[in-house]
Formats: sequence, structure tokens, C-alpha cells
Amino acid sequence: GCSSTLITYMYGRYTQELGVYAKEEAARLRDGGGLRRSANARSRSAELLEYEKDPCAKCHVCTSRCQKFLISRVGEDWIFLILLGLVMALVSWVMDYAIAFCQQAQKWMYGGLDSNMLLQYLAWVTYPVVLITFSAGFTQILAPQAVGSGIPEMKTILRGVVLKEYLTFKTFVAKVIGLTCALGSGMPLGKEGPFVHVASLCAALLSKFMAALFGGIYMNELRNTEMLSAACAVGVGCCFAAPIGGVLFSIEVTSTFFAVRNYWRGFFAATFSAFIFRVLAVWNQDEETITALFKTRFRLDFPFDLQELPAFAILGIACGFGGALFVYLNRLIVECMRKQKTINKFLLRKRLVFPAMVTLIISTLTFPPGFGQFMAGQLTQHESLVALFDNRTWCRQGVAEEFDYISHSHAWKHPQINVFITLILFIVMKFWMSAVATTMPVPCGAFMPVFLIGAAFGRLVGETMAAMFPDGIHADGSVYPIVPGGYAVVGAAALSGAVTHTVSTAVIVFELTGQISHILPVMIAVILANAVAQSLQPSLYDSIIRIKKLPYLPELGMGHHEKYNIRVEDIMVRDVRFITLSSSYRDLQEVLMTGQLKTLALVESTDSMILLGSIERSQLQSLLSLHLGPTRRLDHLRRHAQDNGTHTLGSMGTMDSPPSPPCTHTHSNASNTNARHGVRFLVSVAEVSLTHAHISDSLPQIAEWEEQQLDEPVDFNNCKIDPAPFQLVERTSLHKTHTIFSLLGLDHAYVTSTGRLVGVVSLRELRKAIEGSVTVTGVKVRPPLASFRDSGNTTSVSEVTELHKLWNRHRVNVWVCVYVHFVFVCMWVHECVTCQNLAHAPI
Amino acid sequence: GCSSTLITYMYGRYTQELGVYAKEEAARLRDGGGLRRSANARSRSAELLEYEKDPCAKCHVCTSRCQKFLISRVGEDWIFLILLGLVMALVSWVMDYAIAFCQQAQKWMYGGLDSNMLLQYLAWVTYPVVLITFSAGFTQILAPQAVGSGIPEMKTILRGVVLKEYLTFKTFVAKVIGLTCALGSGMPLGKEGPFVHVASLCAALLSKFMAALFGGIYMNELRNTEMLSAACAVGVGCCFAAPIGGVLFSIEVTSTFFAVRNYWRGFFAATFSAFIFRVLAVWNQDEETITALFKTRFRLDFPFDLQELPAFAILGIACGFGGALFVYLNRLIVECMRKQKTINKFLLRKRLVFPAMVTLIISTLTFPPGFGQFMAGQLTQHESLVALFDNRTWCRQGVAEEFDYISHSHAWKHPQINVFITLILFIVMKFWMSAVATTMPVPCGAFMPVFLIGAAFGRLVGETMAAMFPDGIHADGSVYPIVPGGYAVVGAAALSGAVTHTVSTAVIVFELTGQISHILPVMIAVILANAVAQSLQPSLYDSIIRIKKLPYLPELGMGHHEKYNIRVEDIMVRDVRFITLSSSYRDLQEVLMTGQLKTLALVESTDSMILLGSIERSQLQSLLSLHLGPTRRLDHLRRHAQDNGTHTLGSMGTMDSPPSPPCTHTHSNASNTNARHGVRFLVSVAEVSLTHAHISDSLPQIAEWEEQQLDEPVDFNNCKIDPAPFQLVERTSLHKTHTIFSLLGLDHAYVTSTGRLVGVVSLRELRKAIEGSVTVTGVKVRPPLASFRDSGNTTSVSEVTELHKLWNRHRVNVWVCVYVHFVFVCMWVHECVTCQNLAHAPI
Repeated sequence: GCSSTLITYMYGRYTQELGVYAKEEAARLRDGGGLRRSANARSRSAELLEYEKDPCAKCHVCTSRCQKFLISRVGEDWIFLILLGLVMALVSWVMDYAIAFCQQAQKWMYGGLDSNMLLQYLAWVTYPVVLITFSAGFTQILAPQAVGSGIPEMKTILRGVVLKEYLTFKTFVAKVIGLTCALGSGMPLGKEGPFVHVASLCAALLSKFMAALFGGIYMNELRNTEMLSAACAVGVGCCFAAPIGGVLFSIEVTSTFFAVRNYWRGFFAATFSAFIFRVLAVWNQDEETITALFKTRFRLDFPFDLQELPAFAILGIACGFGGALFVYLNRLIVECMRKQKTINKFLLRKRLVFPAMVTLIISTLTFPPGFGQFMAGQLTQHESLVALFDNRTWCRQGVAEEFDYISHSHAWKHPQINVFITLILFIVMKFWMSAVATTMPVPCGAFMPVFLIGAAFGRLVGETMAAMFPDGIHADGSVYPIVPGGYAVVGAAALSGAVTHTVSTAVIVFELTGQISHILPVMIAVILANAVAQSLQPSLYDSIIRIKKLPYLPELGMGHHEKYNIRVEDIMVRDVRFITLSSSYRDLQEVLMTGQLKTLALVESTDSMILLGSIERSQLQSLLSLHLGPTRRLDHLRRHAQDNGTHTLGSMGTMDSPPSPPCTHTHSNASNTNARHGVRFLVSVAEVSLTHAHISDSLPQIAEWEEQQLDEPVDFNNCKIDPAPFQLVERTSLHKTHTIFSLLGLDHAYVTSTGRLVGVVSLRELRKAIEGSVTVTGVKVRPPLASFRDSGNTTSVSEVTELHKLWNRHRVNVWVCVYVHFVFVCMWVHECVTCQNLAHAPI
Repeated sequence: GCSSTLITYMYGRYTQELGVYAKEEAARLRDGGGLRRSANARSRSAELLEYEKDPCAKCHVCTSRCQKFLISRVGEDWIFLILLGLVMALVSWVMDYAIAFCQQAQKWMYGGLDSNMLLQYLAWVTYPVVLITFSAGFTQILAPQAVGSGIPEMKTILRGVVLKEYLTFKTFVAKVIGLTCALGSGMPLGKEGPFVHVASLCAALLSKFMAALFGGIYMNELRNTEMLSAACAVGVGCCFAAPIGGVLFSIEVTSTFFAVRNYWRGFFAATFSAFIFRVLAVWNQDEETITALFKTRFRLDFPFDLQELPAFAILGIACGFGGALFVYLNRLIVECMRKQKTINKFLLRKRLVFPAMVTLIISTLTFPPGFGQFMAGQLTQHESLVALFDNRTWCRQGVAEEFDYISHSHAWKHPQINVFITLILFIVMKFWMSAVATTMPVPCGAFMPVFLIGAAFGRLVGETMAAMFPDGIHADGSVYPIVPGGYAVVGAAALSGAVTHTVSTAVIVFELTGQISHILPVMIAVILANAVAQSLQPSLYDSIIRIKKLPYLPELGMGHHEKYNIRVEDIMVRDVRFITLSSSYRDLQEVLMTGQLKTLALVESTDSMILLGSIERSQLQSLLSLHLGPTRRLDHLRRHAQDNGTHTLGSMGTMDSPPSPPCTHTHSNASNTNARHGVRFLVSVAEVSLTHAHISDSLPQIAEWEEQQLDEPVDFNNCKIDPAPFQLVERTSLHKTHTIFSLLGLDHAYVTSTGRLVGVVSLRELRKAIEGSVTVTGVKVRPPLASFRDSGNTTSVSEVTELHKLWNRHRVNVWVCVYVHFVFVCMWVHECVTCQNLAHAPI
């Protein structure tokens, strides 16, 4: 699965530590501001003095003031967005340039070796294999997180989950270089998905950079989320030069609830980025002026006939089935490879064999003198799309000769074979090739390949229509022939919409083609395709989320109105683990060993059950380990030793370095610090184990002491308590619960009844309720849901059973157990803490 | 201000009553389902029997099954959306037809009377005056809620506030007929805003209708909100035949947080509606096929030069200032009329004089033979727009003669006057005319007039550019002349975007014109216009919300990053009114008299301050009145009388009808029911007062009894308690608080610290914090915010002081006071309870 460490930022997770931090930070800023102000006043008076001395200094004063003003403005959002747009446009343009160069190089090699077919074949095949292998190896070594599209991960991150290492500089480098090589190989891979990830990486890095330079607001977590969602829009926007489509697509793909106040950010940055991206093309004299990427020239006055609409609708429905099939095929391939243990082992050992193999097969099949001649194998994605969106009809009899002069279209016209067969072969071959290619461990997306297949399918339908009605359908008077290119546009939007479950692909095609005349057919086909695909399969991104087991809440599907009738009380876990204000450490220990939730409820007392707040599991574990930890243990031993004379410690002292007070003191500090940083703790743990080995003879004393300690009531004074955990009531509907969980990015909520804790609902229950009840159509679905409560506790208990096993050994050797416990807690804390979270926290 | 009664549906407002209701409803549905199932089984077996008897009955069985299936599917969302789209398309098309007819009739009258200038003038002027006066009068009489745009109200309703009478059939009729007349008059008014309201009305009525027919899910409140937001999209979509723009515009204008899962609803319904709307035009043979509403024919290959972009940017900035000015002017006119008391009184007396006067002035100024000839006064909005989007250049020297044959453009070409002057006059006159006309009390929007002014301004800039660079800017080789129509498109999008604070007007112009070639200039201009306008003025809709004092939370503006540093503890009200579990009725009475919040916190005890839940004010008031109310009072009197012999009651009995037990019993029932329904209470109150008049001699006893009763602890058993009111912690940032309030539609939240209640934040504090701190740029803005706590309690205390005054009289006559109190509570409950809320509630 996914080796990511997760911390969910939750609403209301107000910790004392952060509170203290905020106070200190505010004080620091205030002081800083004061200092700055007084410094300002001083410098201004200095300036004035200078001005009185030297009249020419007026300009200097002005300049310095302007500078200061500019620096103060640097914190504004729009500066950040402009920088982001600029950087991303440059990245996109340079990458496009590099990709085009790679593809030209392949063509040049292939063209130069036309004397020898074998050499030609070797060149045609070796080139992509090398590029893909390099891409896979490079990403594998530098940052395995860069593999794949990145949209599923961004979706998860924007949901509030922190995925480790997904937004680092290493990943950025790996993604950009890996993607360039992968696309340069000419495999059917896309640029869009990875570009969303690249833009987010760029935003995160830019944010860090700005924070290092200017501090202040660049460190805010909420603001970062806002910027990330703008970055996703920039990613799509500068990839297709489609600002509006980019914004909408990124909203549909990454968000569950969208804050309209972030809308302008996306538009601003995406527009700027698209603008720069296209201006670069004009400056490079590729284009005369700013136009669309795949400009079409369909007639404006009569784009399509009303009677063609059924054909468009059928195209949409077919694309819906096709999209669902694509998602299914993609998942099937991944799952097949996972299940086949022999393949799996082999692939794990030789990670680069699989991509090399796939590339070899695909490039062999597209070899132009071979099978490639029947499926326009020599064309790149860009060339194919330009040809498919062409406004001429290919199949018309008698005009085949005028067809030759079109630059790329001749590839579609095989002397022996009908254009229909070429198109069908193209669609079928590209379909499975794309589904296989997107499973390769390189940075790649599936949008563009799917878009291309959709365009080809649309062109096929359009050519069929044109062949059936050579003079158009329109009856009265004027003849308007059918435009197969329009069908290609509709098909492209519909298939990509079906695979991604979005309707904004419609807007993307308008922006890509520069024409909006087919708006109604496109919208109808996209909506129908979505309706079909959504009822059959999850979206490609959701499918990947499930495959990777990323923590994500599924959507409530279309019109599942039975959801309105499920209540929280039907799905909640009634057997809540809680601790009371008067709990002893023994209770704490038991609760920690039986529950799995990351936080535990704190109630007033077992009788009143009034919910006071929630405490993180790790907090409790450190409370316990501090209370029973080596420091207090040593103190106890020392005190005990002082009472019984210095025998025990004396013998220890002679055997090893003397356990002098400063030493234990340092040790105590170290364990404290390590519990937070967890980096240097292995060193100190080694020390501890050495010490422990020597005092194993005092075990009975320690066991007795521990039993005493366990009966003491817990001291919650140094514990971070979230005083306002999210509460629901029993009658809250599933629909509302889902809304609230999605809105606030919760991972659990307590269910209360007049302040009394009666249950808890976590993401897991919710996910099961949503996924499990899809097949249920009745009004009340208690029985299938009731089973969750029983079966829900059996999953992911590995960690707990481990602890439990250890605990059984406790009876034999308390010391070992507590030591392990301590190490476990340290590891736990280490694992849970990301740099982002605690780097700012005061120790 | 606004005479609406508000009930905010809040998250977590789980009341016992609703809980009981839900249980009963679930039971009912289960039983119903069971019955239906058994009925099904029975009918199926009957069918089978029949089938065995008669082989021809197979078809019947099939048909009836299909019917059942269809009926079961009627509950699906998409059926509802198709119906909504269909109805709205028909309404839109019929209204357009009627409006066009009205406008043609005016032209026909004006044309037929060309012999006599005076008659012509009278006809030109009288016609709109009559229509507008009728529209104003009709809406005033039928449903005053239909006045104006409706978007501000929809924004408020989608925020979760119930505005009384805004979604009724009466309002629908008033809005549709009033709008048709208003637009038919040819005044500079728009159709878009009202159409959003009409679509929402339509959705609400359709929903009610479906609920009456099919029941079940059509009664769900959450679903209704989802449908309303789809309806807003339909409104814009079928008004402009712009499905994508419609969805986006409605999201931007009405939502703060948008649920992406509702996205498809809007797209589906808006596309279907736009499709039907345009198909109707094709069937009516107005159009040859489905095309855009204002189709342009700009060249595709070179839409604009890169060097024209600065001109587009300047156009955008100018439109930003223009938009802000429009909003300011509009508000100024409304406020002027309100402040001028003499005008105000006059207008209030004669409500129809103001619209008639405004119409008279505007139509006089546009009279074509008069001043109208200099500002293309004879053209309707539609004709003007078609002319302005024309792809020919008007000002070019030497080609003036080819200019004549364009149908509507000759109106712009006055023989004596330059086209520039015509344009400038048009812009200036239409600007103030639109600002004034939209304040008339008729159903009308401002989008279309503003759009038109923007187009004219863009055309002016474009013509200026064309005059400056007659051969285009492009230097190398080919000559591409400047297209002023493109500037008109950009200007229209920019000005309407600036006035409404939206960027989706860009998409609307693409869909309206059917061309997307100017995407980058349009996006740049719209974004710049938004940036300028948003920093100067609120949007037109927010401005109206403020004028009408609708309950709405303002947005956090662009990049006000100091918001991140304000915490809840800075703005919360620390002096929270609360009641404890052990409160006496006297405490309750005091709390009710001093606080203003609609709900009161329930804490465990004054010492622990642990928040248990919140209780609605009206609940507490009815608790109090029930405890001290006439029923128990009479009981007490009777018991007292029985103890002291039947003297008191006997004398009463002789004077009036005997107060027999059944009578009081009925009375008790009545008071109970009235407290909920409040409709028939006046009758019983009359009864009560009669009875009271006679027993005024037993006052000292009652005062004594009441004092005793007030000291009793409150019995919360029959009280609806919300067990999970929303809680924040002191350190929650303003930004997060705003997000949560907007997301969940809260109107207040308690601030707790480890379960202890420490403060409360309501919409008012939040609003003040957001509005007040815009000018503050420091890091910590305590002083200006701290003042809210002191000044916050002085507003809207009218109700409380009234109660207080009454209380002072209590010392004189307890009876009168409690009676008034009771009446007050009845009225309060009556006022608070909408039919929607309690019609379903069990009594």
C-alpha cells in the first residue's frame, strides 16, 4: 500500500502547546513591529536630516520608501500568485520544448536510418525504452512519491491529510525530469495530472522560500491550503492554456467543498500562467499571436443540425461506457500484477523491468513500417489531435486527392485500408496501451491519452455520420455537410469527462480548440457520459485512491436519497474508549491497549459521562511512559537505595560509569526532547539499555513500585487536551454527517446526548456506511449497518496486538515491557510528528 | 428595513420535538413500506393468478410493473431537474416572447403616429409609464417580496436563513407578470437577477407539488437547499442560454462554500433548460439551428494582437472604477430617498408615483425625435447589443456608406454628430438611467443594463483604437485591422463582472457570443475590473443586502491577511447569559429580560460552568409562562378556594359563566396549542382577559403564590435542548471562525475551555470584527475589537426594554404583567414559528 505517515489536521485540535506558541509568536511579532517602527522613525529622521543637508537625496528617500513599500506588499497574495504563475508557465514551456525536442530526435533517428529496417526498428524501440527506464529509475532513486499522476494525492492533501514527502524539492526535481523523459519517449502518457502535482510542489516550495525571506503570513496553514488549491488550477491552466477549464477541473477533481473566496486566486494565477505560456510561444515565433493550443476552424453560422443531436447523445453514452471500462481495465492491471505473486516478486526485485517491457511492446506495435502503419503510429499525440480536430471530412468519396496535402492527415490514409479501419485500430490499440502505460512507475497522467482516444472515437462516429448523410441532414434549401471534427471535439470531452468524472472537460475543449460553437452537443455528451460512468465505476482518481489506500472519504453518489434516512445512531460505535478525570494510570494503560482511535475522549466521570474534551493517544502514551519511565524509575531506585544504603547503586557504579545526578538529569532531558524530535533518540536509547542491563537485579522492587504507580490518579496538567472535539447528536443524518466531515476535514466525531458521551463516529464507519449502503434501497437500513459495529473493530489492529503481546510478557518482566513501551512511544511520536508540525512548536 | 421573520436553521439544532418527529416519521415510513411491500406481494400474486387465467394479461402485468418502476423513479433528482429545466425554459421563452411583443407594440404605435409629433411623444411616454405603474402596483398588491432582483434574498436563503413569503406561489405570479411588464416597457432593466429568483420559486413550488404527490424525500430540508442552488444556475442558464456561465455565476453570486457534489445538478438542469430554450426558438423558426443568443463573427485566425493587450487592461481597470461607481450611485439614490423625509413620506403615501416619475423622465430623454436621436434611443437592449458586438468598424473614414445597410447600426450614426459622441452620450445617459431605474419597486435586475453599458464603453475604446491605428498594430507583413466588436465583448464582461464581483461573466460572454477567441483579453480585463471594484465597493448584491439589512455574513476580503491574527477571544462576548440545571424560575426570568441572543446556554452549575447544551429563548419563555400561566394559576385559585370555601370562585361564577373544570381544561389545551400555532390565540386571549377581569380581587394571593413559584427549580423535562451547540476555543482564528460560520450557517457559537463555557460569539460580533478591522493593518488589533464588547449590547434592545418596562409595572400588578408576559410569549412564538418549521412538528 502506501507508506505515508498521516496527520490529520482537524478542526478544533487546539493544543496548549500551539496556544503557547501562538502567544509567543504574537509577542515576537509585536516586539518586532515595535522595533521596526522605532527603526523606521529613526531612519526617517535620519533621512530628513540628510535631506536638509543634500537636496539631491530626495530621490534616495523616495526610492528607499518605495522599496520599503514594495517589501511590505510582497506578503500580498497576488504577488505570490503572479510568481507561481510565472514559474509554472516557464516550467510548462521549457518542458514542452524539451519533450518536442526528444520526440523530434526520435523521428530524426528513425528517418536517418531508413536504409536498414532493423536499425530503424532498433532506434525506434531503444530510444523510448531508455527514456522510460531512466525516468523510472531516476524517480525511484530520488523520490518515489513523484510516480503517477499526483491528483489523487493532492485530493487527499487538500482534504487535510498530510502526506509525507509529497511536497518537497526532491519530489519536484524527480517529477519534472521524470515527466519530461516519460513524455519525450512518445508513450501514450499525459502531462496534465502530474502538472497539478508540479504546480502544488511549486506553490509549497515558493511558500517556504517566501517564508524564509519574509516570514509572517507565509507560515499559516490555512493560507497554504488556499494556495495549494490555486496551484492545482494553475497546473491545469498552464498545461492546456485553459484558465477557466483549469480552475473548474481542479475544483471538481480535488475539492469536496469549495470556498468561493478562493475562486479569484485560481482564476488570477491560471490566467496569468496561461497568458505567459502562450506569450512565450509568440516570442519564440511559434505563433503569430495568442490563440488556442489546438485551434479548430469549424463554420460558425451553422455548426451542427438539431437532428444530429441524437448522434451526439449516443456518442456521449458510448463514451460513458468506454470511460468506465478504462478505469476498470486500469485497476484490473494493477490488481493482477499485485495478486500474481511470482510476477510481483520479480517486479519488486527488478523495478525497471516492467516499464522497459511495456515500452518495448508498445513501441514495437507502433513501429511505422510495421503494425504502426495501420494505426497512424508515427504521429505524436499533438499531431494526432490536430489531425482529428481537422474540419475536413476524410471519408468523402471523390475528394480523397485534396486530402493529401494536409500535413499529418496522410498518416491516417493507408493505401490499402479504409480510414474507418485505421480509426478503429487506433482506438482499440491506444485504449489498452494507455491503460497499461499509465500503470508504469513513472510520473504520468491519463488525461491526454484518454482525450486522444475520445477524439478518435468521435471522429469515427462523425465520419460514419458523414458517410451516411453525405449532403448533411438539413432538409430545407441550403446544404450544410456534417463536420466530423465537431464529433471529435465532443468525443474528446465526453471520454475524458467520463474517466475523470468531471463536466468541466467541456470547458477545457472550448479553450483548447478556441471555438465554443458546439457547446450544446458537448455539454449533452459530457453529462450523459458522466451519468453512465458514475453509475458504473469510480473516477480514475478515486480508483487510484482506493488502490493506494489513501485516507479519503468517498462521495455521496448521485441521488442516493436513502442516505437521508440513515442516522448517526445507526452507524456509530457505542463502545467508546474514554478516560475520566479520576482515571488511574492503570485505566489509561488498559484503554491504550484496547482502542485504536488516534484520540481518546475525556469525560467528567463514569456516572455523568459528560464529555470534556479529547486527548491524543500519543499524549496519553507519553503521560504513561513519563510516569513509569526510566527517569522516575531511577529516582525511585536511588531513593530506595539511599534508604537501604548505597548497595545497589554502588555495585552499579562500580560496574559502569557512575550514575551521577547530572547524568540522569541529562538523560531525563534527552528523553523529553526525543519524545518530540525522535531523531537522536536511538543514541540515548542505546545508553538506556546499557544502564538497564545492569540494574536487572532490582526487578522485584521495580514491579512493586510500578503497581503502586499504576494505581495513582492521572495528572492531566501537562497534557494537551482538545477542549472542543466535534460533537454530533444521535439523530444527525448520514448526509449531514458526511457534509460536516468533508467540510471540516474531520476524522472522527463524538456523539453526545445532552453533553453525555454516547458514541463515536470515525471516517471508517462513515466510509463503510456510504460504500455499504449503495445497494440498499429501503428506507431504513439498520441490519447491514448494524454489522459494522461488530466487524469494524477487526481491521488494522496489528499495532494493538503487538502491544498486547508485549504486555503479556509484562508479567514475566515488567522492566523489559516498560522499556519496550517507552521505545514504542518514542517511535510512535517520531512517526506521528512531521517536521512541518513540530518544527515551529516550542520545546 | 426588512420585515422578514427569520429562523436560522443551524447545525446541531437538534430538538427533542424534531427527534420525536423523526422517530414517528421513520416508524410511519417503515410501516408504510411494510404495508406497501405486503400490498406489492399481494398484487404480484394477484397478477400471477391473473396471468395463469389469461395469457394476454402478460402485457398488462408488464405495463403495470413499468408504471410502478417509473413512479418509484420519480423521486430521483434528475426527474426533478428535467422538470425544472423544462418549466423554466418555457417560462423564459414565453416571457421573452411577451416582452418582444410589448416592445414591438410600442414601436408600432410610435411608428403609426408619425404624422403628429405630440401624439407620437405621448404614445412613446405613456406606454412605458402605464406598464411600469401596473407592474409596481401589481407586485405591491400581490407580493411585495417580488420587488427587485432577488439574488440578494436567494443568497441569504442559501446561507440557511428562512425569509418569509419569498418562495410562495403568489410571489411567483407577481414576479413573472411584474417582470414581463417591466421589461416590456423598454426601461433599462435586466431579466437575469429576477430569473434566478423565478427559478428558485419554481423549484420550491415544484418541490412542494412533488411532495404532495409522492411524499418522502421531497420534504427533506437539505435536499431543498441543494435543489435551490441548482435552480439558481437554471435561472441564469435559461435566461442567457449559457449553461456553464449560469452555473458559475450562480455559484459565485449565491454561495460562500460550494458543495462540488451539487455541481452536476446545476450543469444538468441548466444545460437542459438552455437546450429547450434554444430549441423553442428553432421550432418557432426564429433560428435555423441552435446557436448563441448574440452571435458574433469575429475572425478566428488573428483575433487580436499581443500589443493590444494594454488597451484591454486599461479597459478592464476603467470598467472596475465604473462598476464601483455604479454600485455607489445605486446605493446613494436609495439612501437619499430614505433620508429626505419629505420625499420619503410622499413616496410612502403614493407608492406608484416614484416609478411613474422615473419612467416618464427616462422615456422622455430617449424619445427618438428628441434627445434620443443622439443616444440611439429607439433601440431596445437586444438591438443595441447586437449592434455593439458587430464585427465592422464604425469610425473608419471612407467606408461610412457601407455602414448604412446594417440593420440597427444606423441608429448610432447621426448625420451631424460623430459616432464617438453618440457613444459617450449613450454611456453617460444609460449609466445614471440604469442606476435610477433599478431602484424602482418593480421586479428587475441590473445585470443586462450594466452589460450593455460595458459593451458600449468597450466599443468606444475599440473605435478609438481603430481610429488611432487604422491599419492595425501588427508590423511584420500582413495587416490585421483592429476589431472594435472584440473590445465591446471585453467591456461588457468587465463592467458586469465589476458590478457583481464575479469572474464568470467572462464565461457568460463566450456563451452569449458563441466565440471564445478573445478569452485572454476578457479574462485579464475581468480580473482587473474585479480587483479594482472589490477594493472600492461591495458588490451590487452585497450592497442591496446591506441596504435591506438582510442577515448575512460579509466575506473576508482579498488578502486581508491580518485576519489570520485575530482570535475568538478578541471578539467574543464574555458576559454570557446562561442557566444552570439548578436554576429557579426567577433566574430564568432575569436571564430572559437581560439577554438578547435567540438561544441560551445551559451549564451544569455556576461553579463547574460545563456546557451541556443550548435552549431556545422561546422555549424558556414558554416554560416560564406555562409554570406561571393562567392554567396553573386557576388551579391554584381553585384549590385555594376549596380550602377557604367556595367564596371567591362562587362570586365569579355568579357574575359570569361558571368556570367549570371542563371549561378550564379546554382553556389549558387551547393555550398549549396556541403557544405553538399562535393563529387562534387571540380568541382565547379575549376569553382569558374576560376571566381575569373578574378575579382581580384575588391579586394578593396570586402575587404570593407567584413569588413561591418563582423560587422553584426549573423543570427542563419538557424543554427542547440542543445537546451539541457549536463550540469554539479561545484561540480559534477569526479566519477559521468565519469559515466555520459560513460553512455551517451558524448564527452563534459558544466558546469553551475544557468544557467550561467562557464566552459566546454571534454573527454580529463576527460581522463587526470583519468590517471594523479592514482598516487595521497591525498584527494584533485588540483595542478596536475590544470596544465591540462594550458597544455591542446597545443595539436592537427595543424588545428587551419593552419587556423591562412591563416588568417595572409588575410591582404594582403582578397579574397584569404575567398576562402581558403570556401574550408576549404567544406573539413571540407566533412570530418565530413559520409554517414550514412547525407544520410537520407533532403537537
